[in-house]
Amino acid sequence: MRYKHLLRDLLLSALAEDLGPADVTTEAIVGENESGVAEAVAKSEMVAAGLFLFEEAFLCLDPSMDVHCHVHEGDLVQRGDVLVSLEGKLRAILSAERVALNFLQRLSGIATLTRSYVNAVAGTGVKILDTRKTTPGLRSLEKYAVTAGGGYNHRYGLQDGVLIKDNHIWAAGSIAGAISRARRVHHLLKIEVEVKNITELEEALSAGADVIMLDNMTTDQMTAAATLVSGRVPLEASGNVTLANVRAIAATGVNFISVGALTHSAPAADISLLLRS
Amino acid sequence: MRYKHLLRDLLLSALAEDLGPADVTTEAIVGENESGVAEAVAKSEMVAAGLFLFEEAFLCLDPSMDVHCHVHEGDLVQRGDVLVSLEGKLRAILSAERVALNFLQRLSGIATLTRSYVNAVAGTGVKILDTRKTTPGLRSLEKYAVTAGGGYNHRYGLQDGVLIKDNHIWAAGSIAGAISRARRVHHLLKIEVEVKNITELEEALSAGADVIMLDNMTTDQMTAAATLVSGRVPLEASGNVTLANVRAIAATGVNFISVGALTHSAPAADISLLLRS
Amino acid sequence: MRYKHLLRDLLLSALAEDLGPADVTTEAIVGENESGVAEAVAKSEMVAAGLFLFEEAFLCLDPSMDVHCHVHEGDLVQRGDVLVSLEGKLRAILSAERVALNFLQRLSGIATLTRSYVNAVAGTGVKILDTRKTTPGLRSLEKYAVTAGGGYNHRYGLQDGVLIKDNHIWAAGSIAGAISRARRVHHLLKIEVEVKNITELEEALSAGADVIMLDNMTTDQMTAAATLVSGRVPLEASGNVTLANVRAIAATGVNFISVGALTHSAPAADISLLLRS
Amino acid sequence: MRYKHLLRDLLLSALAEDLGPADVTTEAIVGENESGVAEAVAKSEMVAAGLFLFEEAFLCLDPSMDVHCHVHEGDLVQRGDVLVSLEGKLRAILSAERVALNFLQRLSGIATLTRSYVNAVAGTGVKILDTRKTTPGLRSLEKYAVTAGGGYNHRYGLQDGVLIKDNHIWAAGSIAGAISRARRVHHLLKIEVEVKNITELEEALSAGADVIMLDNMTTDQMTAAATLVSGRVPLEASGNVTLANVRAIAATGVNFISVGALTHSAPAADISLLLRS
Amino acid sequence: MRYKHLLRDLLLSALAEDLGPADVTTEAIVGENESGVAEAVAKSEMVAAGLFLFEEAFLCLDPSMDVHCHVHEGDLVQRGDVLVSLEGKLRAILSAERVALNFLQRLSGIATLTRSYVNAVAGTGVKILDTRKTTPGLRSLEKYAVTAGGGYNHRYGLQDGVLIKDNHIWAAGSIAGAISRARRVHHLLKIEVEVKNITELEEALSAGADVIMLDNMTTDQMTAAATLVSGRVPLEASGNVTLANVRAIAATGVNFISVGALTHSAPAADISLLLRS
Amino acid sequence: MRYKHLLRDLLLSALAEDLGPADVTTEAIVGENESGVAEAVAKSEMVAAGLFLFEEAFLCLDPSMDVHCHVHEGDLVQRGDVLVSLEGKLRAILSAERVALNFLQRLSGIATLTRSYVNAVAGTGVKILDTRKTTPGLRSLEKYAVTAGGGYNHRYGLQDGVLIKDNHIWAAGSIAGAISRARRVHHLLKIEVEVKNITELEEALSAGADVIMLDNMTTDQMTAAATLVSGRVPLEASGNVTLANVRAIAATGVNFISVGALTHSAPAADISLLLRS
Repeated sequence: MRYKHLLRDLLLSALAEDLGPADVTTEAIVGENESGVAEAVAKSEMVAAGLFLFEEAFLCLDPSMDVHCHVHEGDLVQRGDVLVSLEGKLRAILSAERVALNFLQRLSGIATLTRSYVNAVAGTGVKILDTRKTTPGLRSLEKYAVTAGGGYNHRYGLQDGVLIKDNHIWAAGSIAGAISRARRVHHLLKIEVEVKNITELEEALSAGADVIMLDNMTTDQMTAAATLVSGRVPLEASGNVTLANVRAIAATGVNFISVGALTHSAPAADISLLLRS
Repeated sequence: MRYKHLLRDLLLSALAEDLGPADVTTEAIVGENESGVAEAVAKSEMVAAGLFLFEEAFLCLDPSMDVHCHVHEGDLVQRGDVLVSLEGKLRAILSAERVALNFLQRLSGIATLTRSYVNAVAGTGVKILDTRKTTPGLRSLEKYAVTAGGGYNHRYGLQDGVLIKDNHIWAAGSIAGAISRARRVHHLLKIEVEVKNITELEEALSAGADVIMLDNMTTDQMTAAATLVSGRVPLEASGNVTLANVRAIAATGVNFISVGALTHSAPAADISLLLRS
Repeated sequence: MRYKHLLRDLLLSALAEDLGPADVTTEAIVGENESGVAEAVAKSEMVAAGLFLFEEAFLCLDPSMDVHCHVHEGDLVQRGDVLVSLEGKLRAILSAERVALNFLQRLSGIATLTRSYVNAVAGTGVKILDTRKTTPGLRSLEKYAVTAGGGYNHRYGLQDGVLIKDNHIWAAGSIAGAISRARRVHHLLKIEVEVKNITELEEALSAGADVIMLDNMTTDQMTAAATLVSGRVPLEASGNVTLANVRAIAATGVNFISVGALTHSAPAADISLLLRS
Repeated sequence: MRYKHLLRDLLLSALAEDLGPADVTTEAIVGENESGVAEAVAKSEMVAAGLFLFEEAFLCLDPSMDVHCHVHEGDLVQRGDVLVSLEGKLRAILSAERVALNFLQRLSGIATLTRSYVNAVAGTGVKILDTRKTTPGLRSLEKYAVTAGGGYNHRYGLQDGVLIKDNHIWAAGSIAGAISRARRVHHLLKIEVEVKNITELEEALSAGADVIMLDNMTTDQMTAAATLVSGRVPLEASGNVTLANVRAIAATGVNFISVGALTHSAPAADISLLLRS
Repeated sequence: MRYKHLLRDLLLSALAEDLGPADVTTEAIVGENESGVAEAVAKSEMVAAGLFLFEEAFLCLDPSMDVHCHVHEGDLVQRGDVLVSLEGKLRAILSAERVALNFLQRLSGIATLTRSYVNAVAGTGVKILDTRKTTPGLRSLEKYAVTAGGGYNHRYGLQDGVLIKDNHIWAAGSIAGAISRARRVHHLLKIEVEVKNITELEEALSAGADVIMLDNMTTDQMTAAATLVSGRVPLEASGNVTLANVRAIAATGVNFISVGALTHSAPAADISLLLRS
Repeated sequence: MRYKHLLRDLLLSALAEDLGPADVTTEAIVGENESGVAEAVAKSEMVAAGLFLFEEAFLCLDPSMDVHCHVHEGDLVQRGDVLVSLEGKLRAILSAERVALNFLQRLSGIATLTRSYVNAVAGTGVKILDTRKTTPGLRSLEKYAVTAGGGYNHRYGLQDGVLIKDNHIWAAGSIAGAISRARRVHHLLKIEVEVKNITELEEALSAGADVIMLDNMTTDQMTAAATLVSGRVPLEASGNVTLANVRAIAATGVNFISVGALTHSAPAADISLLLRS
């Protein structure tokens, strides 16, 4: 996900979206050959993610821009910390600023929220997973940001994992029927099944599910589920997970907790670009 | 923004991002000719936005899908309300579900947050504006969602408005200098200037700014600014606006309040797609 | 893989590649409003695959073309069988012919070759798998053709399965080291390991590989491997598989046999489009 | 066809097709800064074609990769010969390997098959031509590979040559009619006509065809045709050409022999990428 | 060139270029469901070309628009003539108007200018040709417009014809050398050679050029050239052709006259879209 | 508009349009490693615009091409002046020549025509504006060329300015109604209104238009309008402007004169690329 050439088109189209035919303010006020120095500064504590995109946005407009990154992907940084320094054409700095920040703030926001969940379950061995509830067009970047925050990726899309949900079970008539249909064609992918209660869990177990997702269960139900399963297959808790209840969920004995909010509701990290004279 | 053909490519690439080469679960379990009925249901109070995208996502996979929308764009809906009904190929329903919801939840989330700000300043005549702090690739949709929520759009991009910020002023040497350079080339665009204090405000006023942005001022400063300007030019408050302080800011006498959080930090609206038998 | 809207761009760019600005012969000779009737006829026994693409190519040029398909995807057809009938604008028939046939002949060629391998191992329970040795730009279609022929798909790409090859083992220092690194981040994907001999097989087994690929082994080695593993994990035979030796390989007790030639060396099926008066 | 910038998009989309969001195996096992040395080695005798694409695939992922090519385009190489050496980031080597090989093996396969046909007619002065039976999306590369193998290109597409086939003749009512309609608008393109027997050949000749294609004739018919034409226009043999009969066809006195199999049925050349320590 | 699906992307990107995220005027003033009736009216005598694009532009925004075309492609129309009638959503009419007219005015402008040249040489049998001096991105449409005006197309691009210019001759050392190199690889394309004087003409003739371009010759030189060649190969006059001198050039005995101005300098045809109540 | 990376795709697709799969003449005649020296020379007096595109076209085919520009954007150059010198691969020079010139001649043609209008109103203070009557796909470049010629840009598209035309007024029922609807949603864009006579002018003035466009008025009407308005709002003259009447229009007291012909009917500048030995 960090091969720059594969991200070029995404950056160029984001720049085109913001620039349109021209940055009318900057072109009117700043000379073509003026240069400037700027710093991206964290305005609050955060986990940095997407610095390579931030840098590349400026390089798209000024390939000779001097960019220097002061932190690593996934680093926890403090309010006031300088993340990246830039020196180059002032027009390029001003015209690429918003796009560069929009990427960096979004990805750092996701990494920061992920880190909060990871910290909340520290010591339990439970892993925090993302979902497919991502921004259209940015999935692989957002899933990358989750890993920068210390989380793990669930499947990227509908192709790379069998996940049998209630609607599939409804269509197949039973959990066992759905698993059997999936096994007939898929031998190299794990088969995960979503269950809503202990009865369904037992059916999924006996039908040979590789992973079981406990959907919207209470912590009591999850504890019962973990006791029943007793390590035979991994369990994933899903639904209504918050920072307030995630540790209690982790304590039930599940192996994974998936959190849609990591990508669909993470507030942007607060970062400013400051010109230095 | 609602011409479907202009949105087709965006939807198709979002579907391609999620589907990859195939929805391996659905293809294995659901027959090619099975049909289904489904409803998108609000899981909490929200302002609906993006219903046309939600519908179109399913139509991309099954052009004969029967879609019926029960609410209008911008409607306030309650927990349990059915937003859209679908009837068509079950495979298409299951395979397009996530992409359709990802668009609808994001746009409705933005509309819902915007509505909160709009309600908070109700009766003051102040208008809530968005910013360019949008998701790369989705700007025009997100700005559309702001209007569905009752907000107004600031400029779409760097082309359609002159907005002189501190960095431009720094480059030009003075506010008057920056305005003068902009006036030399731009006659059909309004010139807005960002000021940090009353001194700069006076300089901007006397240099002929069309609109003035009060950047990160206290409410006392904003009141003083509004008194000084006395309606000669519109004033926009910007920076650190929250639902807690937005009404106090509106009471200072400014005309507009711009809120980056509308687009960069709106939590997704909670919406589910339920199959009906 | 058969959602037509997701394939439109591929078809349109293939048509653009062949048509360029104009079919100079057809435009000069055939009137704009002349209509014609044509049939796609198999010139030898084959398994049909890609009929939906064949039809759609003509519909791109004449949306009112009447297309009628006489066989199903995956059907074995005989020399002389009519696969598809067309009636519509003659110009569209002549100008889309080559592109439509290029898709149909390639995919049917893959399905036909796959069927040969599948038939060769009939009754053994062994499954024939494809590889990533596909034509750039056509992977998902070619993998679809393999399933039409009765084969199964190995992973689509580098994202949807962990496959540890000799180069990865070399980089990690040992099979156990490579598996351990992969297990650290991947919990929902199966981990397959490529081994070259019995020693490596034992190392992979004890390190907990989910699937083991026997790379370029003799049938004696494979028999020994299958005996040793005794069903604990699935085994995939890979390398130098031909129609001549595939049944012998299947007899060794492996579960899967992957065949690169299915997609990289399948000869095109022989199909003609004949005009009918 | 060898301007790298014009091929960049093709390579990037092929890499995206294979990589998806990430090479999950390599990222988990190989460190970001590890480097490696690798060689592309021929596993059998072949004609090399597409080396520039092979190299560029790696450069897309690691622009500082050190690539060194040991043979020229069109060279006949032997089993064991090193074609290209690489030194650079190990992750880039492993992640680009399959795409690079898929291009190189396909193009070298085409060049190798073409060379067989060229050698089979050596000394006769007859030229081997390709057709439009190419892989959608890869036509210009595949036609390039034919020239690397010593063959010649027939028209690239429907725009750059008038080729009147039986269907056009049927539509125009007669060969003379079809030629006359084509002559009315095309003055700078040669007009080639496909004929099935001597009667049609005579009609095409007297109607002024620039080139005549003998479609699916026996060698006796072709000999008669060549005798009749006696060099007045070039003759192209087409249909059912194999390595077994191509020299006999060449001996009939035709000038060109076109072979669809060059591009639609060439088996991939066998090439491996080997890591060196 | 008139397959609408192949032109869709061009139209959609032209609409996106003009519309940007929204037609802010129309959306503010015209209701979403208001309908309107409009007519495209010629403001001066012209040859119509591109009516299908004009219609399709409106259909992109309102697929149910009722469009009715009153004239044919290539028709000479008079000031005041109605070209196309539209009835549909008023917003779509107003928002697509400029793009639709930009295409129609440009193509009709080219057709009109071409017709002038064609009329100027009426009765001489000389054909007016276009060149590659077209607008980037619009070549095939502009070359289509030339044919609508009664002209003929020279090659579409660098692929579909060998045209040896002075620079190629310079590189090859001589006309004969250049022709010989071209003959070595091209057997199905005509070879045209550009000559500047009678000496070069004789060299080209004896070297076997299929077509000869007389570059920037005086009419006296052209007459001498035509006399010398005496019909053995077609002659094309090129360079400094104007409406004032084109008939004199035609009288020299050349077969073709190519005119860059047809596409690079045709003034737009004057057409208005008028709303009817 | 001069960020080269944002223009790359445009140039590459223009090159692809002209090159197709290959420049068959140049590849046959010029060796891969031959180099050449060339100069772009003005064939008549002109204003240069688009030199950066001209250069970049060659760099796309030969990144190591040595390009040297002898004049600045917007410079008035004389017949015989060398604009750009090139030294690099001869194949790249010959194959990119036409595309490079097509851009440069078109943009310089627009700049040259614009300069004529600017000169014609010299001393009056009136500014020459462009319109949206541009070539589909090239708007921002053509509007750039207008500024290089000394003109000013009207809005880029439908998004960045409210321009109320007769059709909008018709839909709203009155000028006042249209302005009022626009004011309700647009606060940061100027509102311009098109009027046809003095009555409408007075209505627009009293309804608070920010700018007024005088559509197709006589100079007498325009003088009366300017007298009436007396500087309260800027006036733009539009319709039937020619080089012959533009100065008379400027003398009426209007502030801006918009000229569609600048972009829709500017003849290409005459520029040649000459090889030097």
